[in-house]
Amino acid sequence: MTLHSPLHAQLYEEMLRRIRSGEWCAGEKVPSEKSLIAEFGTSRGPVRQALATLRAEGMIVGGRGAPPRVHRTAPHQSFDTFMSFTEWARELGMTPGQKVIERVKLPATEEIARELQIAPDDPIVEIIRVRLLGDKPAMLERSLFPYEVGRHLLRVDLDNGSIYQTLARAEVVPVRAKHIIDAIPAHPLEAEQLHVDQGAPLLRVRRIAYGSTGAVIETADDRYLPAMTSFVVENSADHSMPLARQAVGAA
Amino acid sequence: MTLHSPLHAQLYEEMLRRIRSGEWCAGEKVPSEKSLIAEFGTSRGPVRQALATLRAEGMIVGGRGAPPRVHRTAPHQSFDTFMSFTEWARELGMTPGQKVIERVKLPATEEIARELQIAPDDPIVEIIRVRLLGDKPAMLERSLFPYEVGRHLLRVDLDNGSIYQTLARAEVVPVRAKHIIDAIPAHPLEAEQLHVDQGAPLLRVRRIAYGSTGAVIETADDRYLPAMTSFVVENSADHSMPLARQAVGAA
Repeated sequence: MTLHSPLHAQLYEEMLRRIRSGEWCAGEKVPSEKSLIAEFGTSRGPVRQALATLRAEGMIVGGRGAPPRVHRTAPHQSFDTFMSFTEWARELGMTPGQKVIERVKLPATEEIARELQIAPDDPIVEIIRVRLLGDKPAMLERSLFPYEVGRHLLRVDLDNGSIYQTLARAEVVPVRAKHIIDAIPAHPLEAEQLHVDQGAPLLRVRRIAYGSTGAVIETADDRYLPAMTSFVVENSADHSMPLARQAVGAA
Repeated sequence: MTLHSPLHAQLYEEMLRRIRSGEWCAGEKVPSEKSLIAEFGTSRGPVRQALATLRAEGMIVGGRGAPPRVHRTAPHQSFDTFMSFTEWARELGMTPGQKVIERVKLPATEEIARELQIAPDDPIVEIIRVRLLGDKPAMLERSLFPYEVGRHLLRVDLDNGSIYQTLARAEVVPVRAKHIIDAIPAHPLEAEQLHVDQGAPLLRVRRIAYGSTGAVIETADDRYLPAMTSFVVENSADHSMPLARQAVGAA
């Protein structure tokens, strides 16, 4: 069979390429319809349809009065932005916030020790925070650190700063992370802190972050309000990438 | 600060590298503890701990009688395996199944037309299926195809085969896809088909699949039982990859 790409799809691909390559910069105005029509030598319809698709995908924002701009969070996010809720919110132009629920030094259980690659009963630091976007709760975050890492977090003001920025000042920097994404019902603590009913669906991301030596520097369990946040990933036949669907308990 | 990588973490990294590189093949037996101890010149403890970590991450399966083997679904999955529930289940060594709930040709609404990059009222094909792992329901899948693609699916026996395999025979092959992952409560149809209570948390993956010409060949909305499936993704500071956390409605 033949499946010709319609003109608007070709324009879409070209505009998407420009956004991805940075030729059209994040946050900048999108060229006017008039200039795009002139450049591509097409009629108004396909240009509008290509722009509408990019808008539907969130690659372009604004319109209806405001000039359309390239979205600041096009699907390629830097590792730092993806890892840090604080940096992510700032890039979005929103004010990140946090409220520390718990910060405690305690001995590792067997399971936690295995995850953090330390010995059982070795000390760890546990931090539980509610993360806010603007003034609204968006996520409950529970992070565990080996004491050697977490000790840098015991005395700083976590209500006004990023854990990763604090760790970076101590030269602890994550360079690789694994994220396991699923859904779970809200438990009492999440229901209270995120203002939802118990049992309401939350998007859970469990993370293991590795430092430059390969050692685990953090394991985390982030529970997002799905009304506030989703995750986007692209893959293709050309490029192998570390993305997998996995059967729960199949291991 | 110094953050020395303990010996077991170094062994873990080396074994992980071997699994990733294919030096240790998926599905094959892991070398014996004895041979690893001899090769690395270490004591039994660190070797065991490295193996335990790989087992906890699902990179190694078996043990307790059965010889440990490299998991067939290490986090790198091929594009085809990630896209096709059927191929994925088979790679896991499980029997994929499906039950067609609905298969219908109908005109595109405005929203669907925009997503499929066609004109409103153009014909589309909608297919709703329950997907099974073994005999257990795992996911409810709702796929929409432009008629030019979906017409190949109207008369085939979908209870005994893969949609993607059928499309491949018609030379329609996805080469790129975008996946948006979040969580939602089960609605009546999902509750009935997946045997859960209404409102139970489901893991939702919305997918847009593109063919080689850049045209959209499918949009899908897959709702997984989180007790059966999760998604895993890895990222690193070295490699940019198309992964993003996104604020819902921020566009």
